[in-house]
Amino acid sequence: MTLPPIEELEKCLSRLPGLGRRSARRAALALVREKERLLRPLALSLDAAATKVRCCSVCGAFTTIDRDPCGFCSDETRDSSLLCVVEEPADIVSIESSGAFRGRYHALCGKLAPARRMGPEKLRLAELRDRVVREGAKEVLLAVSTDMDGDATAGYVAELLRGTGAKVTRLAFGLPADSGIAYCDPLTLKRAIRGRLDM
Amino acid sequence: MTLPPIEELEKCLSRLPGLGRRSARRAALALVREKERLLRPLALSLDAAATKVRCCSVCGAFTTIDRDPCGFCSDETRDSSLLCVVEEPADIVSIESSGAFRGRYHALCGKLAPARRMGPEKLRLAELRDRVVREGAKEVLLAVSTDMDGDATAGYVAELLRGTGAKVTRLAFGLPADSGIAYCDPLTLKRAIRGRLDM
Repeated sequence: MTLPPIEELEKCLSRLPGLGRRSARRAALALVREKERLLRPLALSLDAAATKVRCCSVCGAFTTIDRDPCGFCSDETRDSSLLCVVEEPADIVSIESSGAFRGRYHALCGKLAPARRMGPEKLRLAELRDRVVREGAKEVLLAVSTDMDGDATAGYVAELLRGTGAKVTRLAFGLPADSGIAYCDPLTLKRAIRGRLDM
Repeated sequence: MTLPPIEELEKCLSRLPGLGRRSARRAALALVREKERLLRPLALSLDAAATKVRCCSVCGAFTTIDRDPCGFCSDETRDSSLLCVVEEPADIVSIESSGAFRGRYHALCGKLAPARRMGPEKLRLAELRDRVVREGAKEVLLAVSTDMDGDATAGYVAELLRGTGAKVTRLAFGLPADSGIAYCDPLTLKRAIRGRLDM
């Protein structure tokens, strides 16, 4: 006998990435147990995020409603000749945290996935080509995922940008940091061996 | 450069049990990315849970505002001579899902923990003794955690109920289901050996 409001909350939480059925239940029960400490602040911050956060009309990154184009697009100190293409706005947050990129971004808002009926027309691809031409980007760095859909997306974008004069590159393949060889899958190892670096 | 509304959301999510910093970030970004599918339903279900869910004034279980005493307390088919004591209302949900208990419940809403300044006065202990006497319970089953705080709580409750005529029992110690000996910690194994069962 679980109560309908708790069950509904559990269902909504279990849709979030990283939350399985069991952790969604634990979280739901913790929320109703501690309304003041957990539930109310979360509800308020959801409302704030819902009303204040939007996607930049130029690059697709998350920005606030009072700031479009976003901070990346309007930052004059960033290198506009280098454009990093990501699948999701969230990927930009990860790349920024690396501190290794100072160019501009373009989020496709998805990746090619015929199985899930994600065709090129659903991605921000026309906008990408327009930008590359208009902004005269010299290099387009593809920071897409390393699965089959990511490979297909990378291939498609490379083809799309042919003739624009921009060089198209892709993130290196290899071992992740702070990890052991024993945890590494065979394909990653194969690519790391092929791309081995001189010491 | 993470946006303040997203950071705030991430912070609120990371306080939930089972969500680390990284998964809270992923969840926060997924929420703002898919407002209609993820954020709005979660916000609505939080509001509903905030206004509709309360704790039963008798046993402490979660119930809805229009149903106090709760479904467990008002269910005449349940055995009122058997009372199960839990730490948290959420524990009742777990015990119910076992299908092995048909008595009534009493949530202490915490456990004794001197280090966190949780003394007996903060738990629903006076209410427990009153109920045991008033309802004439024959057995009080302690379903508390198996750490030091749980042991202390169990000992305190056993002492508290002395003289009420109720037998005090505690859940068995032993191996968890569907698990291997290799995954089992030494203390659990020791207790499982001591409590070994005839075949």
